[in-house]
Amino acid sequence: MIGVDWGTSRFRAYRLGDGGAVLARREAALGVAMLQAADFPLVLEREIGDWLGETAGPVVLAGMVGSRQGWVEAPYLACPADAARIAAYAMPVEAPGASKAWIVPGLIARDAQGRADVLRGEETQLIGLMATLGDSAATICLPGTHSKWAEVAGGTIRGFATHMTGEMYDLILNRSMIGRVAAEGPPDDRAFAAGIGRAREGDGLLHQLFGARAAVLAGDLAGVALPSYLSGLLIGHEVFTVAPPSQVHVLAGTGLADRYAQALAIFGIRAIVHDADLAAAGLWRIGRALKVT
Amino acid sequence: MIGVDWGTSRFRAYRLGDGGAVLARREAALGVAMLQAADFPLVLEREIGDWLGETAGPVVLAGMVGSRQGWVEAPYLACPADAARIAAYAMPVEAPGASKAWIVPGLIARDAQGRADVLRGEETQLIGLMATLGDSAATICLPGTHSKWAEVAGGTIRGFATHMTGEMYDLILNRSMIGRVAAEGPPDDRAFAAGIGRAREGDGLLHQLFGARAAVLAGDLAGVALPSYLSGLLIGHEVFTVAPPSQVHVLAGTGLADRYAQALAIFGIRAIVHDADLAAAGLWRIGRALKVT
Repeated sequence: MIGVDWGTSRFRAYRLGDGGAVLARREAALGVAMLQAADFPLVLEREIGDWLGETAGPVVLAGMVGSRQGWVEAPYLACPADAARIAAYAMPVEAPGASKAWIVPGLIARDAQGRADVLRGEETQLIGLMATLGDSAATICLPGTHSKWAEVAGGTIRGFATHMTGEMYDLILNRSMIGRVAAEGPPDDRAFAAGIGRAREGDGLLHQLFGARAAVLAGDLAGVALPSYLSGLLIGHEVFTVAPPSQVHVLAGTGLADRYAQALAIFGIRAIVHDADLAAAGLWRIGRALKVT
Repeated sequence: MIGVDWGTSRFRAYRLGDGGAVLARREAALGVAMLQAADFPLVLEREIGDWLGETAGPVVLAGMVGSRQGWVEAPYLACPADAARIAAYAMPVEAPGASKAWIVPGLIARDAQGRADVLRGEETQLIGLMATLGDSAATICLPGTHSKWAEVAGGTIRGFATHMTGEMYDLILNRSMIGRVAAEGPPDDRAFAAGIGRAREGDGLLHQLFGARAAVLAGDLAGVALPSYLSGLLIGHEVFTVAPPSQVHVLAGTGLADRYAQALAIFGIRAIVHDADLAAAGLWRIGRALKVT
């Protein structure tokens, strides 16, 4: 089987063996943002054409490749959803050669007030992680540009909520007047913790963000400490809003996972950190559930 | 007397008569962000050289011209501050010809927890407005890129707090993934009110901002309504955080003043809207308090 995680900025393909073992992987900076609809089969053939001929089983594609800007739009599927339900709503596409390829849908969740939230691609990581968690209910955090907090149980994604934490950090640091008073420096754990402490006071992110600039201008905070302080402030706001249970599973690369674990510890919450690279395991489980051979 | 409001992006000069009457005004896109320290006297001579020779009284300069990136740094003056105290801390500079010129300091305020906030230039509008308010205590809102909420009484600025509402609106709409699903459209009062309503629920701006994107992708909100919704969400967060008294003075241009008045009304607060152009009146009061003739 072949699994492809095809996001806004990157193409990641996995050749998968029994049980979802990763036999080979390829990656390219050929994200959906750079491509037109007609490009997708061409890129697939160029990047993994040799795999396509010699691999049994389907090609499973997940991520922004299924968005309106992707290859074929796979409409959002409503939660609760498991691998079987996601596979049932996958859209078949004409892939190069004789291979059978499916694009999996993104998910839509509605909160108690009926407000929508959406994801595309992260379902593969959630399903991959659930394979190791067993059937009990759990809270999973996927930090990043748009951090996802999902509630799962018994192999099913019950719902989720998104926070634009990573994107906001980039905007504030690199595009705003607040970031202009920042200087380059190593990560500063004390400033990070101070940012989290500030977020917990709950008196408004728009005020607290300007306050970070004011603190530098007033000489209360060093410019080199500002990036860590802002990171703490934003992650702190995210965790404060979520109000997670006493134990959370965190899926992220080392640096980001450490920062979230540190933030959660300040809130008295235990973080169990997992390898972020669980998309392949999820793609395999969705592929196995496809009603094809 | 001559007053100059010299900010990040614009130069605005006023020739002032008795009582602060504006006899003439000139404006240029020659903000502090575009200039080096040596440029300031040259720009002043080029823009208002004819006034300098024939005007009695000092030249009073306010705004980012007094920042580290300006002509001469006029260090922040601690609140509470009135026109006399601001004049006492003004920095003399060598202006063209025989004119006497002073750069007024920005202000620093500390909240009950000792956290700093800063402003530069807005003190002229606050002092200008106070001239018409009498001695009673009042709350003044100056909406904008960095909205200021000031507490004043008896001609004195007692303290203030800043919210990066306008800058955040620009970043989200024009630089973020949330803004990418927006479309051009006329202002939408219902969407604005819906954004304010959402802000009042208090469950986290980072989540609510992503939710605006999700609402469009889910078909719950039209792309053309997104700009008004975001405006309501951000102004709503600002007002929710400030929790103003039952009556607020708002200084802004027509469009922005209307939006704030509408937002405050939803919170059950009365807005008294004033002409935003009160900087000249404030500059005149500060100039009159300078210990020079």
